[in-house]
Amino acid sequence: MSGHGYETGRLNLPFVGIATFGKRPYVADWDRIEADVAVMGAPFDFGTQFRAGARFGPRAVREASTLFSFGHAGAYDHEDDATYLGGDVRIVDIGDADIVHTDTETSHANIEAGVRAMLAAGALPVVIGGDHSINIPCIRAFEGQGPIHILQIDAHLDFVDIRHGVVHGHGNPMRRAAERPHVTGITALGIRNVSSTAKDGYDAARAMGGDFLSVRQVRKLGTDAVLARIPKGARLYVTIDIDGFCPSIAPGTGTPSHGGFLYYEVLEILQAAAEAHDIVGIDLVEVAPDYDHSGSTAILAAQVLLNFLGFIFHARQQRG
Amino acid sequence: MSGHGYETGRLNLPFVGIATFGKRPYVADWDRIEADVAVMGAPFDFGTQFRAGARFGPRAVREASTLFSFGHAGAYDHEDDATYLGGDVRIVDIGDADIVHTDTETSHANIEAGVRAMLAAGALPVVIGGDHSINIPCIRAFEGQGPIHILQIDAHLDFVDIRHGVVHGHGNPMRRAAERPHVTGITALGIRNVSSTAKDGYDAARAMGGDFLSVRQVRKLGTDAVLARIPKGARLYVTIDIDGFCPSIAPGTGTPSHGGFLYYEVLEILQAAAEAHDIVGIDLVEVAPDYDHSGSTAILAAQVLLNFLGFIFHARQQRG
Amino acid sequence: MSGHGYETGRLNLPFVGIATFGKRPYVADWDRIEADVAVMGAPFDFGTQFRAGARFGPRAVREASTLFSFGHAGAYDHEDDATYLGGDVRIVDIGDADIVHTDTETSHANIEAGVRAMLAAGALPVVIGGDHSINIPCIRAFEGQGPIHILQIDAHLDFVDIRHGVVHGHGNPMRRAAERPHVTGITALGIRNVSSTAKDGYDAARAMGGDFLSVRQVRKLGTDAVLARIPKGARLYVTIDIDGFCPSIAPGTGTPSHGGFLYYEVLEILQAAAEAHDIVGIDLVEVAPDYDHSGSTAILAAQVLLNFLGFIFHARQQRG
Amino acid sequence: MSGHGYETGRLNLPFVGIATFGKRPYVADWDRIEADVAVMGAPFDFGTQFRAGARFGPRAVREASTLFSFGHAGAYDHEDDATYLGGDVRIVDIGDADIVHTDTETSHANIEAGVRAMLAAGALPVVIGGDHSINIPCIRAFEGQGPIHILQIDAHLDFVDIRHGVVHGHGNPMRRAAERPHVTGITALGIRNVSSTAKDGYDAARAMGGDFLSVRQVRKLGTDAVLARIPKGARLYVTIDIDGFCPSIAPGTGTPSHGGFLYYEVLEILQAAAEAHDIVGIDLVEVAPDYDHSGSTAILAAQVLLNFLGFIFHARQQRG
Amino acid sequence: MSGHGYETGRLNLPFVGIATFGKRPYVADWDRIEADVAVMGAPFDFGTQFRAGARFGPRAVREASTLFSFGHAGAYDHEDDATYLGGDVRIVDIGDADIVHTDTETSHANIEAGVRAMLAAGALPVVIGGDHSINIPCIRAFEGQGPIHILQIDAHLDFVDIRHGVVHGHGNPMRRAAERPHVTGITALGIRNVSSTAKDGYDAARAMGGDFLSVRQVRKLGTDAVLARIPKGARLYVTIDIDGFCPSIAPGTGTPSHGGFLYYEVLEILQAAAEAHDIVGIDLVEVAPDYDHSGSTAILAAQVLLNFLGFIFHARQQRG
Amino acid sequence: MSGHGYETGRLNLPFVGIATFGKRPYVADWDRIEADVAVMGAPFDFGTQFRAGARFGPRAVREASTLFSFGHAGAYDHEDDATYLGGDVRIVDIGDADIVHTDTETSHANIEAGVRAMLAAGALPVVIGGDHSINIPCIRAFEGQGPIHILQIDAHLDFVDIRHGVVHGHGNPMRRAAERPHVTGITALGIRNVSSTAKDGYDAARAMGGDFLSVRQVRKLGTDAVLARIPKGARLYVTIDIDGFCPSIAPGTGTPSHGGFLYYEVLEILQAAAEAHDIVGIDLVEVAPDYDHSGSTAILAAQVLLNFLGFIFHARQQRG
Repeated sequence: MSGHGYETGRLNLPFVGIATFGKRPYVADWDRIEADVAVMGAPFDFGTQFRAGARFGPRAVREASTLFSFGHAGAYDHEDDATYLGGDVRIVDIGDADIVHTDTETSHANIEAGVRAMLAAGALPVVIGGDHSINIPCIRAFEGQGPIHILQIDAHLDFVDIRHGVVHGHGNPMRRAAERPHVTGITALGIRNVSSTAKDGYDAARAMGGDFLSVRQVRKLGTDAVLARIPKGARLYVTIDIDGFCPSIAPGTGTPSHGGFLYYEVLEILQAAAEAHDIVGIDLVEVAPDYDHSGSTAILAAQVLLNFLGFIFHARQQRG
Repeated sequence: MSGHGYETGRLNLPFVGIATFGKRPYVADWDRIEADVAVMGAPFDFGTQFRAGARFGPRAVREASTLFSFGHAGAYDHEDDATYLGGDVRIVDIGDADIVHTDTETSHANIEAGVRAMLAAGALPVVIGGDHSINIPCIRAFEGQGPIHILQIDAHLDFVDIRHGVVHGHGNPMRRAAERPHVTGITALGIRNVSSTAKDGYDAARAMGGDFLSVRQVRKLGTDAVLARIPKGARLYVTIDIDGFCPSIAPGTGTPSHGGFLYYEVLEILQAAAEAHDIVGIDLVEVAPDYDHSGSTAILAAQVLLNFLGFIFHARQQRG
Repeated sequence: MSGHGYETGRLNLPFVGIATFGKRPYVADWDRIEADVAVMGAPFDFGTQFRAGARFGPRAVREASTLFSFGHAGAYDHEDDATYLGGDVRIVDIGDADIVHTDTETSHANIEAGVRAMLAAGALPVVIGGDHSINIPCIRAFEGQGPIHILQIDAHLDFVDIRHGVVHGHGNPMRRAAERPHVTGITALGIRNVSSTAKDGYDAARAMGGDFLSVRQVRKLGTDAVLARIPKGARLYVTIDIDGFCPSIAPGTGTPSHGGFLYYEVLEILQAAAEAHDIVGIDLVEVAPDYDHSGSTAILAAQVLLNFLGFIFHARQQRG
Repeated sequence: MSGHGYETGRLNLPFVGIATFGKRPYVADWDRIEADVAVMGAPFDFGTQFRAGARFGPRAVREASTLFSFGHAGAYDHEDDATYLGGDVRIVDIGDADIVHTDTETSHANIEAGVRAMLAAGALPVVIGGDHSINIPCIRAFEGQGPIHILQIDAHLDFVDIRHGVVHGHGNPMRRAAERPHVTGITALGIRNVSSTAKDGYDAARAMGGDFLSVRQVRKLGTDAVLARIPKGARLYVTIDIDGFCPSIAPGTGTPSHGGFLYYEVLEILQAAAEAHDIVGIDLVEVAPDYDHSGSTAILAAQVLLNFLGFIFHARQQRG
Repeated sequence: MSGHGYETGRLNLPFVGIATFGKRPYVADWDRIEADVAVMGAPFDFGTQFRAGARFGPRAVREASTLFSFGHAGAYDHEDDATYLGGDVRIVDIGDADIVHTDTETSHANIEAGVRAMLAAGALPVVIGGDHSINIPCIRAFEGQGPIHILQIDAHLDFVDIRHGVVHGHGNPMRRAAERPHVTGITALGIRNVSSTAKDGYDAARAMGGDFLSVRQVRKLGTDAVLARIPKGARLYVTIDIDGFCPSIAPGTGTPSHGGFLYYEVLEILQAAAEAHDIVGIDLVEVAPDYDHSGSTAILAAQVLLNFLGFIFHARQQRG
Repeated sequence: MSGHGYETGRLNLPFVGIATFGKRPYVADWDRIEADVAVMGAPFDFGTQFRAGARFGPRAVREASTLFSFGHAGAYDHEDDATYLGGDVRIVDIGDADIVHTDTETSHANIEAGVRAMLAAGALPVVIGGDHSINIPCIRAFEGQGPIHILQIDAHLDFVDIRHGVVHGHGNPMRRAAERPHVTGITALGIRNVSSTAKDGYDAARAMGGDFLSVRQVRKLGTDAVLARIPKGARLYVTIDIDGFCPSIAPGTGTPSHGGFLYYEVLEILQAAAEAHDIVGIDLVEVAPDYDHSGSTAILAAQVLLNFLGFIFHARQQRG
């Protein structure tokens, strides 16, 4: 929040101050977003099939992000000998999409409106869920913005067509995305174990051109080979379901699934993706903080998002 | 569950065995309910405006109820020198109404169907929520069953008409009930502090004949004077929002409100109500167990329900 | 946060949006505070003698306050038949005082600067701790503002002079206040059990004109007689240590002490104080949220503060 | 622990140092107990019928007791204007009785040996459970020490004779005590709700001269009338099941029961008992700390024990 | 539970309905078990040497298993391109063995009776503990059923002969098994760090033909080489102590030991064992759910059991 | 605690008895330390920049250490076929350094005095934090004891010089150490991600001869190559910040950082270091137990310390 940063004479320790994402400025007027990155919460969790609680994901990730938000001139990483997110990358927090209880369609429409506002402002939209169904309005908002390829980090395929009339739950988003003309393909990583997607869903995903790999398959292939499966030059939209990670580091989620990714496995894929592709949108979903009193899950989400943003803008600068 | 009870040679400690309500038999076929009391879960929580998690209320209350379910010949209470819920009171657990994520109306319809099945079987329906919106289909199910008066234990008036199109959220049930011709009146106890019901809701409640008292007002009046406000001979439907109780004993709920009822304050009102009225239906809602690791909230709910059932059938026997 | 309120077309449910106090506007520039009430966090907890964690008090109370922050036209209370905190009461959140780890004096100085800024702006300062030592700089900031009388709600007398060199810990604030010329008296309510203040501290408190009552003494006297012990016309500064309350509703604190006040006991005293006195400053301290996963403690703090503010401005209006 | 106390130049804050009871000296050699009070843990919980975990009761109560263990010259209580547990009251912690897993009888025998050692040393024995079955060996150890009357604070009557062969579980202790010739009577306070004791147990208790009162009955009678039911001059053994208290302040226990005592209700009875009777032994049982992350339950236990000890020795001094 | 499955028109989300294992039918009459697999709880934890709480293991694993219990036609696994546990595998839940507090021998006898009933019915017995001592009666029940080889996944060798008279605690089961003529050998995987088994226990294990490998040794060898150490054609009884896994994914256990197996390491061994051997019995023990509020431990147990059962019946079908 | 050990006829299960480190004797008189190893707590956490709570680290690690403290003749490790910490290694617990709230310098001075006492007694000092700033007085105490090289396990470089006047916070210790003439070098392992140390700190560390490796760099190099970077013959002081480990096994800490070391990675480095170097001092810091209800973090700390001590004395014996 401007006026209170390190540069203005405060020490600004992580536990001090209002919890916006990365302690960045809050922009309430969505017609006046002037930023490289805009972060919005989408606290909707009526789409869950087991534990709810992802509605508190945005607030928890914001608070966790303050741990990594010292007011210094960017974040120095000694492994890469690089400084990420220096003062030249403008990030703002635009608050949350308005959610209407009992009403999935209106809530989704409000999320879509928020993403459209961020895109209209020329900012990279980053949406913090909420359950994975919030990916549906996010993808809808990209209509008319050119073709996108989706990179999905997830335990579950989320490719259910319709079941008991449900088409916009957290088991449906990738099916909905695959139906969109502006979505040219999906690369799903981490898919494992039983989930709400039955065999017919997998068959449909294959038939519609989806590519999915388990955690063990990703490990066997390695980062480079995995990246090679994404079409060259594709504009990437990245959707990260926190349950793609191992419950050991992401227990605070609605439908945990053992055997997931460890931290660097995902981070290196994201870094490579940022170097090879134009990243046009991001969502991170299914953080249900009240199931993890240690805060590890929200801290993971914050670390992943902040590092990924660092990689993206570093790569943009490298590309010139 | 039959065959495993104390009478058949097992000690059957509380922590042993499948957690049905009171360890009573489970009846999966809703066409074959033969019981005095039928207990159904309604694990719906998309109607909440703050914390979700009431979807796990039914399972938590069932598990807590096992603490009070020794296989002895009824529950002896030395204060009343009475044995409650002896072998002659047949209680069954019919499982949960089917819930469809993202879809409020279908979920509510399924709850209504369950209550109708219990009523058709001649059993006293007891519904464990879920959020307070599940009261809406419960009350609907009583259509054609004769007039009912509602006794509400709650922190919040829940008398919102419509807001942003929402008519079936957990802030609306008493308004919806008041609109029904078969609902002849509402007596609401425990109403206090700020809630989603604004002044116009209170005015409407008054205009529609609602009677509401705060915790302090109830204390000042005493049990008898409170009971006297309910029309004599009224057939009572009792809806207990666990947040009517003080957060000191019911912290595991979505929208806690300090200053609520203590245990015996509610118990004595329920006992008096059971003695003075025919109790025709019960719901107990808003237990969100994952916010209370001590289990106190679910234990409270189980204690209240089991004692209330004891009072009801004891009174019925007394009345002959 | 302006632009996102109910009045501008959003439903704005409690779990939605950035967590400022009461979802009120954030003012980063302390030279431009234009409000009736300004709320500041003082997340300092190096003064604690048992459990730390009060540094997360401000964020927790802010988040809890959103539960009571529907975007309606004020908060209607049916018991008082009054609407509190209508649109005419301007409340802002000015963020936190800057805290410097290992350095008590600098941290306290920053808190004092914040209170001075709020006073300079003509706003009623409300400071959320942090441990009770943060009261020391708060009281210092009132120097030159006219005489004040302190109303303390607390389990502990906090009247230690110096021990092992410590003069600014959470056991010292009332002694430090009593030494100030602009503090004309202290009325301490809730004092009970063993604490860091030894007999000599009690003797000193008595000698310096302090008045202290236990919870049982307050109960025996009643609200009116308690209020009568405060000099008529005194300008009141109210310091609320959350451990003045019973651990049943305030377990999330550093040094819990059983036998504390219940909700309405304090609320009624605060309401009476607001009616009888000019309230010139408030702090609420010692909420250590990570010791209470149910959130009850932070919810209590938020409820108390919002209700107290409501009483204060309602009384001001009544006084005309 | 000697050498580290406040008197030897340390500040000795509550969170500092080894957690013995009250930070008092640890005496490993049970042949060399020289003290007025000896405290022993009895971490046995195989006698529980619902939740276990009372095995960690002794460690938790010890740690909580450090909160009230400032190294000052006794604990000054302003309500009583008295200083309790001054330097003249010698308290030692003798560690725990040895517990043998799977083996109830050997574990109980070890507890009995510990109590006998304390009695042989002339110290007032204080035993921290463990579940309530540990009262059985405690009472056995008093054989040959003269007649005792038992004052029981509890939610449950614990008067089961034998069930499925179990005679030494936590539902049996008062029956076992009543069978002992040196136990001249039992006064049980707080008994309420359903428990493992069935009607025949209540009948047996009455037949064997037991006196039991519910929480509401105690409240109606008042402290004096309750005390009057204990034979004058009786040497009292006090057994405190923490579930005698309300779950609002004692959620960390195996079989919580709503509607229990509040803090001062029990404290005043204990104070009156200490004034009117010779207190010859104490146990406090059923603290299962892992069900209460706030620590309130263990803090309650520590506060009750330390205050009760203060009352006992203050009364002894008064009696001269 | 029949009548409520997906095939009968319900969506049957994981959080809906009574929590039997995998939501499979409950069979109360142990003389009428008609199934391929029978699951029984053994909620006994008096054999633990550190934290208790495994008595709630059966209920927690049952509830967690509902997450993986969608009512679809079996569980499709895209990595194996196989559908596991299709409608042709009949699984039933027979509830819990009766446990008698304070009485190890009777409780164990009841467990043995349950396993004998499952074996008599021709069902594969799956027993959910409880602590590891419940393996003792399980193995006893296999007497007269032909020779078995035990595959143990565990952090601890559990090969204590007798200590302080204890022979049936959770440190003794493998010693007890090794003494049985029908047990032809033990392969123990994951054994590491200090435990209750001293050097003489290891020597005895070696002398009695036991084979044990640490986690690091298993990793170095690989799944195939590990499997090769089990005699060809051996009929395998598999006992899984959840503490064989790393505390990162199984913190909810009584005696955690760092450095344990990760998910796929065990899963691949179980899959290979199912392919190479006839699996004749399974127990999974030491899930103490109240030490893991995230539920990860119980979810792990459920995932392991359901996948293992899938592998077993898939392999049986492959073998024809 | 002597007199109560296994050798004296007690079973002495882990949950039984006073929680000193490893249940070893407590020595209150720091002038009479006669031991090979002396363990001291340093419960200071005012140096933290995010979550506090490390003040309870010493008590938590002590309690966790009881799990590994069976009274047998040393700890047998089957992987090494070695018995560690046999009766010939004398370990004592000397309690905690005195901490003075609000006063960093006095608290640090008290810690320094404790370490000097241990060194004067010829014991290997082991200090349990507290936050990482407690390393500053530890290193100061080694002045005049000959040159030392520091081996640091940590997520963060902790090489901040001064910021806002802070020189003794938990971000400063390695900078303070590097300034000391008796510190000949620092090898830091596990350094990763963003932290309070900015680029200039890294540059300074490099300039002052510091060597730091990330987790991934350590993995790539392997234990031997990492060890080779420490000067031959260096006398090692080892400082272990628990956040050097992965949050999956160490969530209970103030500033968690994903991607940390797993258990054996650190253990093998410590074992190799113990074999190759004289270990002259150890501290283990930043365990904040209240953020990890499973206890995994404290158990990890206890396991690491006890194993490391075993390795050290085993190596000393091997060296003769």
